[in-house]
Amino acid sequence: MNKIGIIDTTFATVDMAKFVFEVLKKELPHYQIEYVTVPGIKDTPVAAKRLLDHGCNMAIVLGMPGAMPIDKQCAHEASIGIQHAMLMTNKHILEVFIHMDEAKNDSDLYALSKDRASKHAMNAVWMLTNPSKMHERAGTGRRQGRADVGAVKVKK
Amino acid sequence: MNKIGIIDTTFATVDMAKFVFEVLKKELPHYQIEYVTVPGIKDTPVAAKRLLDHGCNMAIVLGMPGAMPIDKQCAHEASIGIQHAMLMTNKHILEVFIHMDEAKNDSDLYALSKDRASKHAMNAVWMLTNPSKMHERAGTGRRQGRADVGAVKVKK
Amino acid sequence: MNKIGIIDTTFATVDMAKFVFEVLKKELPHYQIEYVTVPGIKDTPVAAKRLLDHGCNMAIVLGMPGAMPIDKQCAHEASIGIQHAMLMTNKHILEVFIHMDEAKNDSDLYALSKDRASKHAMNAVWMLTNPSKMHERAGTGRRQGRADVGAVKVKK
Amino acid sequence: MNKIGIIDTTFATVDMAKFVFEVLKKELPHYQIEYVTVPGIKDTPVAAKRLLDHGCNMAIVLGMPGAMPIDKQCAHEASIGIQHAMLMTNKHILEVFIHMDEAKNDSDLYALSKDRASKHAMNAVWMLTNPSKMHERAGTGRRQGRADVGAVKVKK
Amino acid sequence: MNKIGIIDTTFATVDMAKFVFEVLKKELPHYQIEYVTVPGIKDTPVAAKRLLDHGCNMAIVLGMPGAMPIDKQCAHEASIGIQHAMLMTNKHILEVFIHMDEAKNDSDLYALSKDRASKHAMNAVWMLTNPSKMHERAGTGRRQGRADVGAVKVKK
Repeated sequence: MNKIGIIDTTFATVDMAKFVFEVLKKELPHYQIEYVTVPGIKDTPVAAKRLLDHGCNMAIVLGMPGAMPIDKQCAHEASIGIQHAMLMTNKHILEVFIHMDEAKNDSDLYALSKDRASKHAMNAVWMLTNPSKMHERAGTGRRQGRADVGAVKVKK
Repeated sequence: MNKIGIIDTTFATVDMAKFVFEVLKKELPHYQIEYVTVPGIKDTPVAAKRLLDHGCNMAIVLGMPGAMPIDKQCAHEASIGIQHAMLMTNKHILEVFIHMDEAKNDSDLYALSKDRASKHAMNAVWMLTNPSKMHERAGTGRRQGRADVGAVKVKK
Repeated sequence: MNKIGIIDTTFATVDMAKFVFEVLKKELPHYQIEYVTVPGIKDTPVAAKRLLDHGCNMAIVLGMPGAMPIDKQCAHEASIGIQHAMLMTNKHILEVFIHMDEAKNDSDLYALSKDRASKHAMNAVWMLTNPSKMHERAGTGRRQGRADVGAVKVKK
Repeated sequence: MNKIGIIDTTFATVDMAKFVFEVLKKELPHYQIEYVTVPGIKDTPVAAKRLLDHGCNMAIVLGMPGAMPIDKQCAHEASIGIQHAMLMTNKHILEVFIHMDEAKNDSDLYALSKDRASKHAMNAVWMLTNPSKMHERAGTGRRQGRADVGAVKVKK
Repeated sequence: MNKIGIIDTTFATVDMAKFVFEVLKKELPHYQIEYVTVPGIKDTPVAAKRLLDHGCNMAIVLGMPGAMPIDKQCAHEASIGIQHAMLMTNKHILEVFIHMDEAKNDSDLYALSKDRASKHAMNAVWMLTNPSKMHERAGTGRRQGRADVGAVKVKK
């Protein structure tokens, strides 16, 4: 049984897991989803590692760091933890972090969260089942959360 | 025997362990509490790891970094250590840090400490015994120390 | 069979892998190239480690962090991950990062990317097959992306 | 035979080890002291780990980072190393760092060094032989180097 | 056969290895020197670890980070890597980094490089063969690169 792990937090103000579930259920119907909710982003790395150690092929971490300097530090610590969790398990953890100060208002925060979570769910699908889709997009300026910027255009 | 580890410091100016004990004794009466006091926050990661290695299912670290830049750096180093302690043990360590400059005065510092420590103790209870309580709260803007901010409200 | 791993991202706006392939196919025709594309730089360390664990002698990571503070933080986290991936495998990972704010415009970004990627590909060739070429260049102010600055000239 | 490790540096401008020896010889006469001197603080983590791996129950690191930004960074790197050394050995390393810009002048630097080193030596004694002394001091605002600040006083 | 590892970079603008070789050949004639050149400082930690894993008793890393913020970040990442390489091998790596903005001009950069590299080579000699020489210098304000500052003088 193929499995994918989803980790989210009670700190976030948008239910991002919903967007990921929609993509995964459509694109990877044969995958089992393991879902864990923790208090905040610093609790996500070990939660992801536990799922990966118990058979998940990949994990997606959904977090929403606040706008204060201490929140940036927390996000950094969580990201360091996620790096180590990946290296210890040899599996990918896609980090979907929405920094609250990225958004202009609540509607924008919601739209940003939906776009980034959905696109990273699609990245997970391609990485797990069709890596050539990733190769096609190499160096093409893809963005999650906002519109793609595209590859630079230069006369060679 | 289920066990939970509590680590606090002599540096902190509020006895936060008291608040945690109150919640745990009421909610997890069948759990044994292992309690260790160390000098400062940088001594907490290894203290937590030792308890987790000796059978605790989870640990709660109670720390109070000062307001100076060097204190922020110490808190960062402690948090990095806590990340690694979690990944090495595959168990959660809830980090309850009260930054002294979060509080307006001593009364506020006390209230903040009590609220954050109590709420995280309750998070520990749910994570250990009733994860569905965590799922219910996913993406709902929960805060420890202050009032919850709630989920964003958007017309979809 | 000797193998070298190449990892790039869909976030980058220049196809840097092309420049590396050109050098490697000319200089190391007997090496097999393992090529993986991931979403962003924070996904590269584990991708590199996986290739090294599966027999690659070295890896080259091609990334392009953006110009915002959060991008610098991501690059830092990726670099920390790459450090650990190297130490865990005892193999080199050449980190080819182009910071978007290094370049004056798109043409400059393209030229910078080509120069840095090509020169690091040549470093990989020398490190793998002819270390004396590296010794000859020790302390001589070599730069990838821009012109070499050369060794300091002092009257001794 | 119980053993404790002491590590200091040639970079520091105060002989802090002397203060630690005085406390340990009085309070832990039955402990053997292993003493190592290294160039600077970044050399202390591995020196401490080597002593802990060779049977010391605990280590005390005595360092004196300078006042420049680069010195702060070195202290940070040393502290990260010390965190890992503790987690790898499951033993405590008390980090006694005196930042040169904490002191008003040489006399103050000397007094600060003496107070912090002596108090941390006493913490080591209690942690090794009488943990209840630590519990008594939990949340009471203890400081090493300066006077204690005490617990906050609030009407409950 | 006792062995010591020397790692330098093509990025540096001064051949610092020469100064180290002079000291080592005079002071440790019975030691074999293993010498590796890598592109930049971030490539040095794994190079040092490889030498230590293959029998070197100690390593000396010679690097020259540039003056830009990104260079400081690279130096920090390299230093973190070196910390881990030491802890994973239980051996010392003396980090000889010359920050380009430490020097007033090319002559000063050369003199600084020579002084720091030579003094650290002597530290390596003492640490490997005569630790009492280190103990004598504990807390005496030694500096590499510039003149020693000496121990503080206080009326006790």
